[in-house]
Amino acid sequence: MKAAIFQGPSKIEVQEVPDPVIQKPDDAIVRVTYCCICGSDLWYYRGLTPLDLGRIGHEFMGIVEAVGEGVRKIKVGDLVIAPFVASDGTCPQCRVGMTRFCRNVRFWGTGGYDGGQGEKVRVPMTDGTLFVVPKSNVDDHTLRALLPLSDVLSTGHHAAVCAEVKKGSTAAVIGDGAVGLCAVAASKRLGASRIFLVSTHDDRAALGRRFGATDIVATRRDEAVRRIKEATSDLGVDCALECVGTAEAWDTAFGAVRIGGNIGFVGVPHSVPDVPVSKLFSTDIGVKGSGAPAAHYIPELIPDVLSGKLDVSAIFTETIPLSEIAEGYRHMDERKEIKVLVKP
Amino acid sequence: MKAAIFQGPSKIEVQEVPDPVIQKPDDAIVRVTYCCICGSDLWYYRGLTPLDLGRIGHEFMGIVEAVGEGVRKIKVGDLVIAPFVASDGTCPQCRVGMTRFCRNVRFWGTGGYDGGQGEKVRVPMTDGTLFVVPKSNVDDHTLRALLPLSDVLSTGHHAAVCAEVKKGSTAAVIGDGAVGLCAVAASKRLGASRIFLVSTHDDRAALGRRFGATDIVATRRDEAVRRIKEATSDLGVDCALECVGTAEAWDTAFGAVRIGGNIGFVGVPHSVPDVPVSKLFSTDIGVKGSGAPAAHYIPELIPDVLSGKLDVSAIFTETIPLSEIAEGYRHMDERKEIKVLVKP
Repeated sequence: MKAAIFQGPSKIEVQEVPDPVIQKPDDAIVRVTYCCICGSDLWYYRGLTPLDLGRIGHEFMGIVEAVGEGVRKIKVGDLVIAPFVASDGTCPQCRVGMTRFCRNVRFWGTGGYDGGQGEKVRVPMTDGTLFVVPKSNVDDHTLRALLPLSDVLSTGHHAAVCAEVKKGSTAAVIGDGAVGLCAVAASKRLGASRIFLVSTHDDRAALGRRFGATDIVATRRDEAVRRIKEATSDLGVDCALECVGTAEAWDTAFGAVRIGGNIGFVGVPHSVPDVPVSKLFSTDIGVKGSGAPAAHYIPELIPDVLSGKLDVSAIFTETIPLSEIAEGYRHMDERKEIKVLVKP
Repeated sequence: MKAAIFQGPSKIEVQEVPDPVIQKPDDAIVRVTYCCICGSDLWYYRGLTPLDLGRIGHEFMGIVEAVGEGVRKIKVGDLVIAPFVASDGTCPQCRVGMTRFCRNVRFWGTGGYDGGQGEKVRVPMTDGTLFVVPKSNVDDHTLRALLPLSDVLSTGHHAAVCAEVKKGSTAAVIGDGAVGLCAVAASKRLGASRIFLVSTHDDRAALGRRFGATDIVATRRDEAVRRIKEATSDLGVDCALECVGTAEAWDTAFGAVRIGGNIGFVGVPHSVPDVPVSKLFSTDIGVKGSGAPAAHYIPELIPDVLSGKLDVSAIFTETIPLSEIAEGYRHMDERKEIKVLVKP
């Protein structure tokens, strides 16, 4: 079989590798039908975060080809979505919904686990990890709408949940990448009445509008804050969704959110300054965020994806075969594409 | 009339002062029936926080004696509770419930405004500030249960709200002062199924049990965290209520709360270290807190106080006349009493 192999910064190669086999009773083998490249894969690609050489990718879905003897819920032939981490579903952290923090959490593409960008993947802790799409004969469009549940849509939803978006909320999404755009869609789904999207890219802003943004703030930093305040009686929004992870995005979030509002953050923090407790106390601004518990959210979100109510498939601006995945990385690195879908 | 006068650290004197008069159309004059000494008054008393010399106190209730011509809702003869700050009730911050952060917020005992520890008080922004007790012939016990709405009970409730205590939550309250004890009662009211109270004082712990604590953790720091973890499958509690404001209390809160849980904090922060964003991201722990919007909470809480369901009157361990208020300060400073009620 073929798989994308990370050979060091800027080097993604498709190579022939041995087919995976069941190694443990709770393993499954999934034939990947759709996978994609994540913004966070670019950290490795750009050499900003180290990664073991070898298989890469953590967003995929496919058809179950084999299951170990200990697998109970998942069956051969199931169409499944894999969250961006594997989790057992039974530990105390999983039981409270914190699957991202499973006590046995495993990461695709590290520690001997297959990356998702390849023809097949060995899945650990299958019953906890995989989610079966409860529908047969799913068309291509719906598959494209389902795949983001693996990571970016669940992550955008997590930003909205952490920011406490609810019916009637005003929200500001900082970040117009795939996660930010999904955060817009998630905010709309949760009932936000007004959604500001901070975006200086026309194409991304247009997608944001399609997903539910009511106001595009086509500027940054203090000027973005000024416009959001101006549009909200100088109050600020109830909810700021920080989907970047930079100090600038945090400043914008703190500037845009109202007294007593909430910042939900899902951008992996890069050099974000520590938060003074006195700053929180003097504003009653709540702060919460992390990697999303995708496995926990998928059951809640999937009905709306299948019904078409929650459709972020348009974040995939390019579709390529696995053989061209190096091109896909380059396009995302150059920000030519928002997100690249790969068909192995 | 007589009033308590702050004459500098450790010096509280009762002096004769002129009766207050209506100065603005939205003023009222309240004859104070019950007031009390707050833990935060001790900061001034101990010389830790500066305060203008003059009237002091910010927790009181009483009978309206006069209203300005612009007052609409409040009438002469009303039994009223005053929140610990005055707020207009109409600005954008008040309208979203953040009355503590009213754009016209006024503090009792500073900036020309009367303190609450005295026979009468001039109240600004009367319609926004005062809350009428919707019941006549209120007995002494009920009055003692109502007065804490002015500050400590609303503050304890705020800790629980910020920590997202709900039906079935596990909670840990750090701090066994009046606010911590009220936070226990508020957590019980919101449906917490298990409430740990960190308390090394037998009398306060006993009161905590009476208010709803299911587990007393009679130790501090790492050992308190260890016991709470041990009792919760090594998971930690859903909600930590930080009611002290010290670095030690914050450490305990972070240690006791589970991955994905929430810290609600109402202890005014004193030398609490800044919070690393990476620490929040790697734990999904939410952090939120401030001075409580008491005026916003009173309408929600008062029915349960009047029905006897929410009764924290026992925090008043001593009752004294205004003439003995200096004694009351000394008793609270020496931690002989939890909270001292003063009858002018």
